[in-house]
Amino acid sequence: MRYETLKPCTLLSPVPAVLVSVCGPQPGDKPNLITVAWAGTVNSEPPMVSVSVRKQRYSHDLIADSGEFVVNLMDERHCEALDFCGVRSGRDVDKFAAMRLEPMEAIGMSHAPAVRGLPGYLSCRVRQILPLGSHDLFLGEVVGVQVRDDLMREDGSLHLEEAGLVSYSHGVYQRTADVLGFFGYSVARPEVRKRRMAAYRRGR
Amino acid sequence: MRYETLKPCTLLSPVPAVLVSVCGPQPGDKPNLITVAWAGTVNSEPPMVSVSVRKQRYSHDLIADSGEFVVNLMDERHCEALDFCGVRSGRDVDKFAAMRLEPMEAIGMSHAPAVRGLPGYLSCRVRQILPLGSHDLFLGEVVGVQVRDDLMREDGSLHLEEAGLVSYSHGVYQRTADVLGFFGYSVARPEVRKRRMAAYRRGR
Repeated sequence: MRYETLKPCTLLSPVPAVLVSVCGPQPGDKPNLITVAWAGTVNSEPPMVSVSVRKQRYSHDLIADSGEFVVNLMDERHCEALDFCGVRSGRDVDKFAAMRLEPMEAIGMSHAPAVRGLPGYLSCRVRQILPLGSHDLFLGEVVGVQVRDDLMREDGSLHLEEAGLVSYSHGVYQRTADVLGFFGYSVARPEVRKRRMAAYRRGR
Repeated sequence: MRYETLKPCTLLSPVPAVLVSVCGPQPGDKPNLITVAWAGTVNSEPPMVSVSVRKQRYSHDLIADSGEFVVNLMDERHCEALDFCGVRSGRDVDKFAAMRLEPMEAIGMSHAPAVRGLPGYLSCRVRQILPLGSHDLFLGEVVGVQVRDDLMREDGSLHLEEAGLVSYSHGVYQRTADVLGFFGYSVARPEVRKRRMAAYRRGR
């Protein structure tokens, strides 16, 4: 087993590929979309996420000025829109219109909308902005969450593994597929493991 | 299309499921492993990643004291070890021995090792520690990267999409599968798009 050395780079993979929706705080401001792969969960209590955005990006100041952003989970059906919103600027194009995406009210937000039809979204309120170099790190507290009801079972459980979510690894978007296990499965009793894994398999 | 409202939670998905290897700075300190899903890329220049670790975790102080950690990318073959290292503590068990994993020297690190046999790793030096509540956010600069040479092609390109990397979504580990597109594919010329997508398909 041999290894090759690369120069230091952003190789952590897979990372989320999400569409962040934002809107300036002034009356008449239009919502915008920006694709973010430099995103992550950073805290459990309270639930917090981070998104990193280059200072030059159109959405950077919209987030800073409104103090809000919405993280939309992305499925494979919307991968092309996801890519488009990462390579075009809201200064030049109305991305909602160009990608035929529809904004909808996001719970807990005063300005930023969510995107209708996607698997779900997290409404986030900015708690801290940390300049790191090329990017500013926005730390947001999750203040609202909605998921599409076809991903919920009758028992109230959420089956996000059925959504075909998109991740990003070294320049490539990939579909999230087979369930390999559940948290704690390596130490679960055999019968628990069998029962739970069977439920996931039916799910796909 | 209807949505259900959940209480605010850490639903950002998929997130990376990585094994972080650490070692205290004292002579005789033994290396440890901790599974982290609250991880992300946070900056491009310089390349930086974040990992969030609960203050009570055994590895928390090892990272704080050594100022180092190594993020190991995980493939489906090692998913069970990945889960195990997330539910057991290094205070009670030697996780390397229990999972038959072998530490190897990580480039750029004085203390923390990498894990042999995994697709690759990022050596990180702690630049800042931010207490957020349940977790402390460690911001690390990537100072070294290695990848397994079977993931490199002769032209020097890296094909991480062939590694079968593991992500985590709402309590479930999933395999990263089909390539849906490459960065910029939504605006690429048809012949470029066709050629590049064909290369990925051959890869799987």
